[in-house]
Amino acid sequence: MNVKDKYYQEVLRFWKDLTPNQRELVDHSIIKKHFNKGEAMRSSSDQCSGLFLIESGQVRAYIISENGKEITLYRLFDRDVCIFSASCIMKNISFDIFIETEKETTAYLIPTSIFDKLSKESMAVQVFANELMASRFSDVMWIMEQTLFMTLDKRLAIFLLEQSNIEESDTIKITHEKIANHLGSAREVITRMLKYFQEEGIISLSRGTIHIVNRKRLEQLTLY
Amino acid sequence: MNVKDKYYQEVLRFWKDLTPNQRELVDHSIIKKHFNKGEAMRSSSDQCSGLFLIESGQVRAYIISENGKEITLYRLFDRDVCIFSASCIMKNISFDIFIETEKETTAYLIPTSIFDKLSKESMAVQVFANELMASRFSDVMWIMEQTLFMTLDKRLAIFLLEQSNIEESDTIKITHEKIANHLGSAREVITRMLKYFQEEGIISLSRGTIHIVNRKRLEQLTLY
Repeated sequence: MNVKDKYYQEVLRFWKDLTPNQRELVDHSIIKKHFNKGEAMRSSSDQCSGLFLIESGQVRAYIISENGKEITLYRLFDRDVCIFSASCIMKNISFDIFIETEKETTAYLIPTSIFDKLSKESMAVQVFANELMASRFSDVMWIMEQTLFMTLDKRLAIFLLEQSNIEESDTIKITHEKIANHLGSAREVITRMLKYFQEEGIISLSRGTIHIVNRKRLEQLTLY
Repeated sequence: MNVKDKYYQEVLRFWKDLTPNQRELVDHSIIKKHFNKGEAMRSSSDQCSGLFLIESGQVRAYIISENGKEITLYRLFDRDVCIFSASCIMKNISFDIFIETEKETTAYLIPTSIFDKLSKESMAVQVFANELMASRFSDVMWIMEQTLFMTLDKRLAIFLLEQSNIEESDTIKITHEKIANHLGSAREVITRMLKYFQEEGIISLSRGTIHIVNRKRLEQLTLY
């Protein structure tokens, strides 16, 4: 098995169930795409390019209100598959998700027409799509519960810890505006809460940077 | 075609694609169930009875926080199918939904083991489950956008109009507590907003009842 086959098999759980013809179709139609940081992979002008397999990078899915308020729904990393960039072939999906890169990202695209054909021919592809949608549905439910039921200090603590894990560093480079967008809050509210964390000796703030000083206390905030 | 067959075909879009054996299996295993108003169809103690086909009645799906706050996610009516009562056979679903009847409800239950078998054998059943999940996902996204992005007066106006449509009456019998649960708000906040609507001549309030006085103005509230 060559490297490409191995990659397909790992990322596309239906790969082993495809016929040789179907595999060849995917292999011939797949397109490698490169995105800069902050580029849209799905927007109102380009809603349905197809199934993206993230090779490397980081992608954020979010919704946006009429007055520009944003909420991050989930993130995708290396080897994740982005199904909402193929949402036009899914019946009964009546909402708009925006997808943009948070880091330089390389992805393989299986064009919509090909993925549509496969999902009509192969039960394994249907099962795959079903499981992928269930995953994203669970992500969204988690965010919804967090947003509606949790106090902001808890949500902010969880966000800072996640961000620090993703960056593999105690220092997080992010603006208060961006945090507010992620959490569906206002910048002023986030700034006030961050200052409170700083006064408590949990973090220290400097321009565009948050440094975690007392990780243990930040973790405690996520527990109660 | 007999009445039963006609019902199956209308409610279960995969019915026409089943083999005679599969149809017989469904027909022999299906159980008619009766629920009183306010009974749980899915709770922490009974998470996975199977696929419910609502014959008549009204069902509410909701989530609940640690401190008892509730949010209604969607409702099901006659001929709707409830998939989350079979959520244990769906991979990657990691959230808890509560399902209870809001009116006396009669439903047919396809037990979990049978639905599981069918969804492994039949592509049409997979497609059906996929489309049903996409519908519920869309419902939840709509609620999420409403809850996070809309002002409470707008949400309350929409809720009262919906309720009045469901009851087919200008008079809605519901407590402020229940409305608060539906909208994920507090009773006091809802009472205050309802009193404001009353002062504006949009509704009139009496014990356990809300009467829509000026439907046009209530509808205007949902637009801006």
